Amino acid sequence: MTTLAATLQQIREPDRHVAAQAQRLLDNKTKPRRSLGRLEDIACQVAAIRGTTAPGPARKAIVVMAGDHGVADESVSAYPQAVTRQMLLNFASGGAAINVLARNAGARLVVVDMGVVEPVDAPGVRAVRIAAGTRNFVHGPAMTRDEAIAAIEAGIAIAEELVAGGINLIGLGEMGIANTTSASALAAVLTGAPLDNVTGRGTGLDDAGIARKRTVIRRAIDANRPDPDDALDVLAKLGGLEIAGLVGVTLGGAAAGVPIIVDGFICGAAALVARRLSPAAGGALLCSHRSVEIGHRSVLAALDRQPLFDLDLRLGEGTGAALAMSLVDAALAILHDMATFAAAGVSDSGA
Amino acid sequence: MTTLAATLQQIREPDRHVAAQAQRLLDNKTKPRRSLGRLEDIACQVAAIRGTTAPGPARKAIVVMAGDHGVADESVSAYPQAVTRQMLLNFASGGAAINVLARNAGARLVVVDMGVVEPVDAPGVRAVRIAAGTRNFVHGPAMTRDEAIAAIEAGIAIAEELVAGGINLIGLGEMGIANTTSASALAAVLTGAPLDNVTGRGTGLDDAGIARKRTVIRRAIDANRPDPDDALDVLAKLGGLEIAGLVGVTLGGAAAGVPIIVDGFICGAAALVARRLSPAAGGALLCSHRSVEIGHRSVLAALDRQPLFDLDLRLGEGTGAALAMSLVDAALAILHDMATFAAAGVSDSGA
Repeated sequence: MTTLAATLQQIREPDRHVAAQAQRLLDNKTKPRRSLGRLEDIACQVAAIRGTTAPGPARKAIVVMAGDHGVADESVSAYPQAVTRQMLLNFASGGAAINVLARNAGARLVVVDMGVVEPVDAPGVRAVRIAAGTRNFVHGPAMTRDEAIAAIEAGIAIAEELVAGGINLIGLGEMGIANTTSASALAAVLTGAPLDNVTGRGTGLDDAGIARKRTVIRRAIDANRPDPDDALDVLAKLGGLEIAGLVGVTLGGAAAGVPIIVDGFICGAAALVARRLSPAAGGALLCSHRSVEIGHRSVLAALDRQPLFDLDLRLGEGTGAALAMSLVDAALAILHDMATFAAAGVSDSGA
Repeated sequence: MTTLAATLQQIREPDRHVAAQAQRLLDNKTKPRRSLGRLEDIACQVAAIRGTTAPGPARKAIVVMAGDHGVADESVSAYPQAVTRQMLLNFASGGAAINVLARNAGARLVVVDMGVVEPVDAPGVRAVRIAAGTRNFVHGPAMTRDEAIAAIEAGIAIAEELVAGGINLIGLGEMGIANTTSASALAAVLTGAPLDNVTGRGTGLDDAGIARKRTVIRRAIDANRPDPDDALDVLAKLGGLEIAGLVGVTLGGAAAGVPIIVDGFICGAAALVARRLSPAAGGALLCSHRSVEIGHRSVLAALDRQPLFDLDLRLGEGTGAALAMSLVDAALAILHDMATFAAAGVSDSGA
């Protein structure tokens, strides 16, 4: 059996009994029942994924995967393709937003070159490099099916390694010029939403740019005829190496019983591919924020998840996931550390 | 001049030039312009309040003020009045939600007895005690004008002391059985909203309880005839000792150029009184979350503030303010620590 098949077989739904037990514990804490709202949901969900009402403090990592996209040739981004590599170097030297926010969240940052055109030789950037970028999917598949599987399996291996090293909460992040075009194409095919609803400005396109991007996606879908019922086919034809890698991180994390914090639109598209490959993996997902990028709405609906906040973010890199980690820390602290009515001598109205 | 008058005279609007300078700094960081959305707004707002584009890391405190309410006699709460004191003891022993979340946010917790019926003698609870609870405002003013001023001035003194000790970010929190009734009455008079729009379930009233609460508030307004244009009159007649104290913390913090993070409905009502006493003080407010409590909507509108998140919280104690502090930390880290395009050698599209 392949690594991918074995991983898919290993993934279980979060344990509903543990979620119910965690809610009962929270109901005995000194506060009106459910008065901490979604913070209580987070605590119960993390407990259910981890399979214990005492999951302990979160030990956090954010995996930022980078890859280049052949479709950048079609002028679908406000930035030149060279910026993918420049930003990898920026990650390596610690100056990007995700460096700052991962540090702020107490999360380890794992930066992976899944296939940037020109290799990056820098400490702190892990070279996986399935290919030197994807092919321009306007003319044919972005990746072969084997390349997509190899990228997924590399992501699984990274998740397994992190979990073996003690990590129990993984955030997803990405970098790749033109990757909102890829994510929009994936979202269109996987959710069936009209192109207008999934194609946005990315890092800053004007209206003409959006129209061009939409035409490019239409041509790509026509040229590739991906099978919406075969998520691997859709991923290989319209995805990216970093997106495929993140599918693997999601599946590997879910198989190990570790919650996955999804960032914005692109990570959301990766999470959606993972959920189509394994519906049970959907249970391991926490969606951090609602991105400005319009297609994120369809993706969140298809993931059946409400984001935790909406702060008009549209940067990617895992920045929203990093911000959400503070809420997970808070939720777990409530679960572990609050006093019960009985222990504190506080009257319980039952309200 | 009284302390209150002197403090009001000292309050300045946040510095717009500093906000614009902070935005220019953020525009040179390695990310598309404005792609961190409201996180950038937080950074600019904090910079403007503090009067510097380099405000340094947040040194945080949460001030939880507690007081009892005579109107609890009218059965407007799901909990008995004794719970105010029990919860103060719970704060003192570290088992309440706000203890856990303040620790998680790295914030110092300052617990103040502004006037609980039976005194609390516990380490970590500061006794100010303007009175042994307010009078039942169905029959006449909750406080005299002098009591309200004394409570405000006690709050100002606490804010000044915190700032003198190095604190530069203050969160508001409260505890007081029946204090949503007081906050609803304040909101009705100060915003002009109909009672239906400002009267909610509090800690867990049923529909009959809400109807009773609404009638009580109507009787209180009729009995007291507060002058909507005199916020101090409204506060004295319908407020609470902890609410008046929080008005003072807000004014004291604003006068010292320190951002104030408002929690939910009750702290919002206190912030609204402060803003009516000093419109400029409104500039120092960050509203953390939108509470489940219905009246919070009118209060947020009157404060002209969008909350940072909506997590279905309705606990109070400052819990939402504590959660928002992580976002302020993140925003300031972005302002201080991210690399510029030039320093990182990343191409800037100007997007």
